Amino acid sequence: MKIGIFDSGVGGLTVAKEIKNLLPNQPIIYFGDTARTPYGTKSRETLITYAREDAAFLLEQGAGLIVIACHSAASTATDALKEGLDVPVFEVVTPSIEQALAKTRTKRIGLIGTRATVASGIYEKKIGVLDSEAKVIGQPCPLLVPLVEEGWLKARETRMIVKKYLRPLKQQKIDTLVLGCTHYPLLKKVIQEKIGKRTEVIDPSLEVARAVKNYLNQNGGIECGGQVKDRYFVSDIGPATQEIVRRFMGRRIELEKV
Amino acid sequence: MKIGIFDSGVGGLTVAKEIKNLLPNQPIIYFGDTARTPYGTKSRETLITYAREDAAFLLEQGAGLIVIACHSAASTATDALKEGLDVPVFEVVTPSIEQALAKTRTKRIGLIGTRATVASGIYEKKIGVLDSEAKVIGQPCPLLVPLVEEGWLKARETRMIVKKYLRPLKQQKIDTLVLGCTHYPLLKKVIQEKIGKRTEVIDPSLEVARAVKNYLNQNGGIECGGQVKDRYFVSDIGPATQEIVRRFMGRRIELEKV
Repeated sequence: MKIGIFDSGVGGLTVAKEIKNLLPNQPIIYFGDTARTPYGTKSRETLITYAREDAAFLLEQGAGLIVIACHSAASTATDALKEGLDVPVFEVVTPSIEQALAKTRTKRIGLIGTRATVASGIYEKKIGVLDSEAKVIGQPCPLLVPLVEEGWLKARETRMIVKKYLRPLKQQKIDTLVLGCTHYPLLKKVIQEKIGKRTEVIDPSLEVARAVKNYLNQNGGIECGGQVKDRYFVSDIGPATQEIVRRFMGRRIELEKV
Repeated sequence: MKIGIFDSGVGGLTVAKEIKNLLPNQPIIYFGDTARTPYGTKSRETLITYAREDAAFLLEQGAGLIVIACHSAASTATDALKEGLDVPVFEVVTPSIEQALAKTRTKRIGLIGTRATVASGIYEKKIGVLDSEAKVIGQPCPLLVPLVEEGWLKARETRMIVKKYLRPLKQQKIDTLVLGCTHYPLLKKVIQEKIGKRTEVIDPSLEVARAVKNYLNQNGGIECGGQVKDRYFVSDIGPATQEIVRRFMGRRIELEKV
């Protein structure tokens, strides 16, 4: 079964990479909507439209299940997307919530992400259903995506900005922090340092990859061999796209523009 | 005559504001493509498509001339856009080049902007035609737009980042600096401070407003009274759009989503 993954841009490659690690023989079809990236500043209504278009493209390409790698789309558009689809839909929010609840002791969970993700309130809602005592403290961090895309992963300015964004979460004494954006795993080290080593940092790209693997295990969809041809589609190739891709994947990959 | 202004988002309101200052009785129609913002990370081909769609919308709304307020679109898509249009097209690049050449003594002109703007090479090309001795030193500054949109206009991090971006231009001993992005006028003070007071800073929003006024003066298109109804259209209203608009305009304006 081909795994379709979509994202607002190339950040979702962090998810693709984790899925490939766990399921090396599973063919994946990736779509990054680089012509309209980012999604994190846009409205719910617009994100639902985009998510439907992105998923339709993956289905046309033969995807048997859909993974929403983009947290902004996952937070705002999952329910609307599922309504019209008859294939399984996985997304980065649900498995990271489960993981956060499994890890937290104090039930004070921090969430960092785009404005769209934090404003969606989806974490509060879903966590509230599972554990009414758990509290979510959200913090939008709009500068972290451009800092990663600029390649300033260890720059002094980046470290200062991470510290500034995390300060309110630290004051709120969270013990678990969800990296609610595909770009943040690239800053995991500085985030861990600034939030403190006693706070558990949850990387949703890993969690969603595990959820997909479990599903395929239970449903007999795991490929065990043969020639695997992954395809990486994008809606635009801008002046820095190839370089950013290399940063996410650690190698150059062939992008197909559609 | 109605003035149609388009931009990738709400940054072009700096241009709308200058045009309103010089031509208070001229009705303007603004279109900000907030559903696909930003343009500065996207390819030339995509920007040509978007510019044509944006201009078509303004013409439908009755615009008699078009102003490309977005530097990324102006740098990459002006010629292609003009081909299909029979109304005058103004853009932020040409008048600021004229102003830069008028101001420079050393003929070393700095340009800051998005990746798309700097990569376009349009400044080098146009300045080369007018003065073969003049040299353009371009510096992409991808973090400045998100810093402005975050509202960190005077933050320590912003000052450090501006300084870092301007260092190569300072080393190249420019004496004139073009603010090649609609967001940068909001950082004019810190930019002036970091580049040094002996460098002339050119604000293209002012220059293009003057060019439009000259044209209307010469062509008898200036409105002198009556009720003026300006309209501000956007393709999306995201979680922070209204707040960013207020920052650009100094007041709240009514946005119409299309």
